[in-house]
Amino acid sequence: MNEIKTLPDTVALDDGAHALVIIDQTELPRRLVMLSLTTQPQIFEAIQKLRVRGAPAIGVSAAIGIYLAAREIAAETSDRETFLARFRAAKEYLASSRPTAVNLFWALDRMEDAIPDGGVDEIVRTLHDECLRIRDEDIASCRRIGENGLRMLGGARNILTHCNAGQLAAVRYGTALAPIHLGHERGLKFHVYCDETRPLLQGMRLSAFELSAHGIETTVVCDNMASILMKQGKIDAVIVGADRIAANGDTANKIGTSGVAILAKHYGVPFYVAAPRSTFDANTPTGADIVIEERGAEEIGGLWFREPLAPEGAGAFNPAFDVTDHELITGYITDDV
Amino acid sequence: MNEIKTLPDTVALDDGAHALVIIDQTELPRRLVMLSLTTQPQIFEAIQKLRVRGAPAIGVSAAIGIYLAAREIAAETSDRETFLARFRAAKEYLASSRPTAVNLFWALDRMEDAIPDGGVDEIVRTLHDECLRIRDEDIASCRRIGENGLRMLGGARNILTHCNAGQLAAVRYGTALAPIHLGHERGLKFHVYCDETRPLLQGMRLSAFELSAHGIETTVVCDNMASILMKQGKIDAVIVGADRIAANGDTANKIGTSGVAILAKHYGVPFYVAAPRSTFDANTPTGADIVIEERGAEEIGGLWFREPLAPEGAGAFNPAFDVTDHELITGYITDDV
Repeated sequence: MNEIKTLPDTVALDDGAHALVIIDQTELPRRLVMLSLTTQPQIFEAIQKLRVRGAPAIGVSAAIGIYLAAREIAAETSDRETFLARFRAAKEYLASSRPTAVNLFWALDRMEDAIPDGGVDEIVRTLHDECLRIRDEDIASCRRIGENGLRMLGGARNILTHCNAGQLAAVRYGTALAPIHLGHERGLKFHVYCDETRPLLQGMRLSAFELSAHGIETTVVCDNMASILMKQGKIDAVIVGADRIAANGDTANKIGTSGVAILAKHYGVPFYVAAPRSTFDANTPTGADIVIEERGAEEIGGLWFREPLAPEGAGAFNPAFDVTDHELITGYITDDV
Repeated sequence: MNEIKTLPDTVALDDGAHALVIIDQTELPRRLVMLSLTTQPQIFEAIQKLRVRGAPAIGVSAAIGIYLAAREIAAETSDRETFLARFRAAKEYLASSRPTAVNLFWALDRMEDAIPDGGVDEIVRTLHDECLRIRDEDIASCRRIGENGLRMLGGARNILTHCNAGQLAAVRYGTALAPIHLGHERGLKFHVYCDETRPLLQGMRLSAFELSAHGIETTVVCDNMASILMKQGKIDAVIVGADRIAANGDTANKIGTSGVAILAKHYGVPFYVAAPRSTFDANTPTGADIVIEERGAEEIGGLWFREPLAPEGAGAFNPAFDVTDHELITGYITDDV
């Protein structure tokens, strides 16, 4: 990866507005492969196979995807009702690519809601602008998180992060990694330690990739090394993302986050959660109200390994998330202006 | 592994006193393979290639190994001086199989020190008895740790452990897992959660194997799941082993141990260190005096995986051990009578 000095956007509409261009995350960290997707089955497959992942990145991909569908349909019909019927069919098709991704439905609904009265050409122009607006809003939101984060970090330059709440989960900057990327653009020298983040290794495969690809000093550690890093004074601050933040501030995020927060408190290291306001869920009173998804044992014992390493006679417990109590969180870095 | 109801000793002298019999740990957890080693090169290779590992297991293997060498030499010479010269050469050969294993040298020196005045036959008889004494002392030491641990655990039955300080590191029972094995023999029902213990996965490959092979309920978790386990009230006590315990009680053990101890303190879960008295080092005042070995990056990014998963541009930090401050340790489970 030595020749990469910076990464392109994770998700883009190509210049001619003919293709959804994405970084194929299933090829990371081995190779940086850009995919140019033009047909609906291609876009469906990319979302389904996790070539694009992370709630914001999926939302923007879906918005661009349904715009491309509209463009294709408009080339074949100029009848508004025929167009709308086929648009809704295309929308349902894309929505079924990843049935649990809330941002996917949100983006597709917002695109449909944007459809104006008037002819098919006008609709397509509006959808073009709307999908770019969704993309721009995501970049702007991440950028504001970056600005707010830089202010909150002060002089902290040695950062520990967990999982991937970076550019690769969004379009540009990311959430937890936004202050790093933005500061790096401005010449600040960060050193980021990435928890590898078992079992799916997003920290090692994705965060460490995007940071080092941007030329930021990056060190991978196993999750169980966070304690010695902090004890040796190597960490000035921890920043993580969030899947959901309850009304009292309790934060659901990738499994292991709560452990890092407890270590940070023990060693007196500030622990920040970075997320857009949309992640704060007023309808969830506390972390106790968040149901933790449990996933299959094979992710722990087999997925990445040359051969299964868990003994047959033993079970496995594989919660995908945990909840960090608000008392452990030094501050929330949001996209508030 | 369904047919295994119990495991044989990790290291043994076979009945005819002709072979060192070991569990080949490089085949675990896939297959239980017993190796019967008779020649010095076979024994050398088994220690060097980590087919036998763990300080006590290596010591006992070396003691039995040098006895087998003595037996072989005695078949060829009855001249005491010739015998002793060849014995010392064999001892040096075995000692070079793993140059950092203190227990290896300790066991070989103790065997040499046991050599009586008198003829070669008498020497061989004495060495036979001495290697079995070393083995028996190890079993007895682990058994006392088991007894003391059961007393200390009280009614705790849901146990978290880290790395492998079990039978597979010793001959029988192990240290941290001795109370579990001994209690299980007596009909107590334990449920042991094994941290997988990255990067080398001794918890998943070895602890989970030996516990489930003995029929003990065993669940593998990733290291970063210890926090949610404790939060959910699933853990009554933590037991870990120790590589070295400083005069003030600070304890060096497998990387990640200190993090588990901090979590245990946070959640109010008792945290026990189990180790024989010989692990207590009066010459090391505190944990700050213990040098932490750093190992290669490939253990984190490549070793077990089908393909390298760490990005080329990122570094890795791979400390093999960490130090747990004595304030975090609820109690030490020793082999004191």
